[in-house]
Amino acid sequence: MSDLPNIGFVGLGIMGRPMALNLLNAGYSLNINDKSRSRIDVLAASGAVVCDSPMQVASSSDVVFIMVRDSEDANQVVLGQSGIIHEIRPGSTVIVTSTISPDSVRNIADRLAQVNVDTLDAPVSGGEEGAKKATLSIMVGGKPEVFAACLPILESIGRNIVHLGPVGAGTIGKLSNQVIASVNMLAMCEGLTFAAKAGADLPRLLSVLQAGTAQSWALDNQAIKVLERDFAPGFMVSLQQKDLRIALAAAEELHVALPGCSLVHELYKSVESEPGGGGLANHAFVRALEKLSDVVVSADA
Amino acid sequence: MSDLPNIGFVGLGIMGRPMALNLLNAGYSLNINDKSRSRIDVLAASGAVVCDSPMQVASSSDVVFIMVRDSEDANQVVLGQSGIIHEIRPGSTVIVTSTISPDSVRNIADRLAQVNVDTLDAPVSGGEEGAKKATLSIMVGGKPEVFAACLPILESIGRNIVHLGPVGAGTIGKLSNQVIASVNMLAMCEGLTFAAKAGADLPRLLSVLQAGTAQSWALDNQAIKVLERDFAPGFMVSLQQKDLRIALAAAEELHVALPGCSLVHELYKSVESEPGGGGLANHAFVRALEKLSDVVVSADA
Repeated sequence: MSDLPNIGFVGLGIMGRPMALNLLNAGYSLNINDKSRSRIDVLAASGAVVCDSPMQVASSSDVVFIMVRDSEDANQVVLGQSGIIHEIRPGSTVIVTSTISPDSVRNIADRLAQVNVDTLDAPVSGGEEGAKKATLSIMVGGKPEVFAACLPILESIGRNIVHLGPVGAGTIGKLSNQVIASVNMLAMCEGLTFAAKAGADLPRLLSVLQAGTAQSWALDNQAIKVLERDFAPGFMVSLQQKDLRIALAAAEELHVALPGCSLVHELYKSVESEPGGGGLANHAFVRALEKLSDVVVSADA
Repeated sequence: MSDLPNIGFVGLGIMGRPMALNLLNAGYSLNINDKSRSRIDVLAASGAVVCDSPMQVASSSDVVFIMVRDSEDANQVVLGQSGIIHEIRPGSTVIVTSTISPDSVRNIADRLAQVNVDTLDAPVSGGEEGAKKATLSIMVGGKPEVFAACLPILESIGRNIVHLGPVGAGTIGKLSNQVIASVNMLAMCEGLTFAAKAGADLPRLLSVLQAGTAQSWALDNQAIKVLERDFAPGFMVSLQQKDLRIALAAAEELHVALPGCSLVHELYKSVESEPGGGGLANHAFVRALEKLSDVVVSADA
């Protein structure tokens, strides 16, 4: 018998599946559930116990991860008819790794607190690759002692794991990250579009820009893919848009103006309007600016 | 007698004076001129020859630097009544280190070419501190052989010196840098404003953001000054606005849309509308967003 807690995992998509696999590989026994049966085969073959509902996952787990697409799905998984809340044992912990609205995650935490269950909001970044390699960055909100108790578990799926405050603080951190990263991408794409239209030697210019005050993660990691016309995801336009929608809705609640982020969200619609555009990598944002100014930002131009 | 070329320097402001001093310290004999006599005292005391006009500077110099405020001043210094063009010797070189419009610098180069004088456009970045320490980044446009001949001279005032293409290419590179850096600052300020209004622990959040996809030079260097409410320049709002005006005018000529940069330029007007606002550091941009959303982005909040 193991002293490790039993873990539950609900939501086995592109991110959830490799995260769950890393928990299995770390030696945890795992109860899993997903709306789609087809997603659970690999995990079941590796020893995970397949459950018929989130409720059933909760009934035999000490810590339950939720990695579903959006606030609606998270609410359904926790509070719905066959939701976690109906069977989860007092003293358990729910860890929401989805990026959902701060209000939703606080509401889920409040409801779970009524049955003596703790909640951490722990949205991740690092994408599918980070999920596979267990190198996700994780911003966490919740009680410090709950964070401390769950840290060894989180260390099985991520590397840069930081406690930012009470429930909701992890989500606010993640949304701040998405606001800044998306506007940094606007910056990168706009500078390169200007330079392309002016006839600049883009690869040479890029190396200079990376060494100065224009430097950013976007300029270091995404600009070269723009110049090479490589739009294979990675982090997809449709998911970037989902995160920006959550950030903008939260900003609306808070009465805080995000003029840059709003602009990025609007211009992305031009990329989404292309067939398959939503499935491109998020730096395909440049295509909106290219269409506006009738230019192609390419190393070969 | 020295084999070093005689150097002329016109425009001895915050940037020009320390640049000229570094040339003197590197052993070059220097002919200097500025509209304001008061700016030349230190240099004259260090051995520079004070000239009455740009024309007189040119008459005894092999290489003439121009570091004036804007396109109008640069045109006056080169093409005006007592301008360089009237006395400069064939085979000399003019190096324009001001950030002026690409059209202006190309026009100056064309006119100087008619009297067999070469031009480099070599706008710098790194600010007053970079000028003093001779660590400026310099993006250069012009003939490769002229760049090669002038490189030892430029190495007396800067460190990261890159040839980007024909005359105008240095300016396009600098403007691209300013477009990206200014929109990165919008990103940083917007993310922090959102987090502040949501009640986040800003210093803790900042260190997490710097480690992820939101990272930028602005986030690494300017965000902490925002949190500490330190708006002492550094690179001033009024000069940032001048550069954005040049970039936006160049973009208008090229028919390239810069929606993010335009937004930054507009919002900066809110900072400029404060008494003394134009003289604040450029990350005082955050004050525009703070006013919009009735919040203060501070480490103490």
